[in-house]
Amino acid sequence: MSPRAVVLLSGGMDSCVTLAHALGDGCQVSALHVNYGQRTQARELQAFTDICDHYSIADRLVVDISHLAAIGGSSLTDTSIDVEEAHLDATEIPTSYVPFRNANILAIAASWAEVLTASAIYIGAVEEDSSGYPDCRSAFFTAFEEVIHLGTKPGPRVRIVTPLIALSKREIVDMGLALGAPLHLSWSCYRSEDAACGTCDSCALRLRGFEQAGVTDPITYSVRPSYL
Amino acid sequence: MSPRAVVLLSGGMDSCVTLAHALGDGCQVSALHVNYGQRTQARELQAFTDICDHYSIADRLVVDISHLAAIGGSSLTDTSIDVEEAHLDATEIPTSYVPFRNANILAIAASWAEVLTASAIYIGAVEEDSSGYPDCRSAFFTAFEEVIHLGTKPGPRVRIVTPLIALSKREIVDMGLALGAPLHLSWSCYRSEDAACGTCDSCALRLRGFEQAGVTDPITYSVRPSYL
Repeated sequence: MSPRAVVLLSGGMDSCVTLAHALGDGCQVSALHVNYGQRTQARELQAFTDICDHYSIADRLVVDISHLAAIGGSSLTDTSIDVEEAHLDATEIPTSYVPFRNANILAIAASWAEVLTASAIYIGAVEEDSSGYPDCRSAFFTAFEEVIHLGTKPGPRVRIVTPLIALSKREIVDMGLALGAPLHLSWSCYRSEDAACGTCDSCALRLRGFEQAGVTDPITYSVRPSYL
Repeated sequence: MSPRAVVLLSGGMDSCVTLAHALGDGCQVSALHVNYGQRTQARELQAFTDICDHYSIADRLVVDISHLAAIGGSSLTDTSIDVEEAHLDATEIPTSYVPFRNANILAIAASWAEVLTASAIYIGAVEEDSSGYPDCRSAFFTAFEEVIHLGTKPGPRVRIVTPLIALSKREIVDMGLALGAPLHLSWSCYRSEDAACGTCDSCALRLRGFEQAGVTDPITYSVRPSYL
């Protein structure tokens, strides 16, 4: 029997490729989407729905944790903090960092995995070419696996699978194309919900990845700068 | 300057005593209450408010994570599963266990602690005399501290403080009385919102604790069996 997996599907390119990877691994997928009061929440939910429809995934859970917006501390949820222009070589943690967001999301995924008796949680976190978020590091996920092991009913360990963790955005684009992931349905922009802005960190990373892969990003941008 | 601490305050006796302990430690307290779709949600929120008012705690955050009810798997959130009668000597995990609940709550607390630059999170978990929940064990909290360290911005470590972890209910009652905690404002029953049922696990543990301490529990019960 195919293993059951909870896949975190924000609707962005990385999660879209991660889902394609989980399906390629032969998993029966339960797709989890989390709104956390971010600016582009409605557009990301649309991307989640479109991607699930594309793969005929019936088992879906949409969770609202907009208390992260109430807690604040991030430009993604606090409209009094501007979303910065892209700084792809920055070494500081950017204002878009949402404090401990991935732990909140993984805790929900682990609760669901326990009820489903799923054996894995897939998350499209990227360490190497990331925006410098502390909760996207490999060591964080290893520690969280231990927390799941210690904090849930006795049974087989739930693995946290991070197929993109060591990839560059270019390699993610390559993997997505190789797996036939519906990248045209994904949404990455932190700022806009109609055409992607092309200039926030997330757009810049995505556009550079497509440029490096020698492929045109199929989604619509307001402006499409070169980041090579 | 007094250290800032996030205190998890469900409104039950244990969290009430834990708050009294944090104040006794000299902390400036930010109080966090989490609704998770449990049956007695409104009554617990009232207890939270009453206890905060008692101590004049202004910094409060109430968060709804009723998706845990949607995920299910517990008699506390799923009305199709009965809340069991008390089995104080049971060795199995009871039906009231909410899958990975404490990880969900601690993730929220850690997000808030990061924004507040708090140095501690207080939680009234009890391992020794507990109902056998895996996410109430000391090893779980130690692992979660590591997850916070790895998954948040660099800075001083946030400690998870569990002053009741090794205490019996009797010792918790003793500590609450010694600290002058407002136990008459706390609420523990899993079933009822007017008078406590007196027969669920939570009522039974509480009543036995008061009996062993030789003190009458000041709250109202429908029935008040002896558990000695």
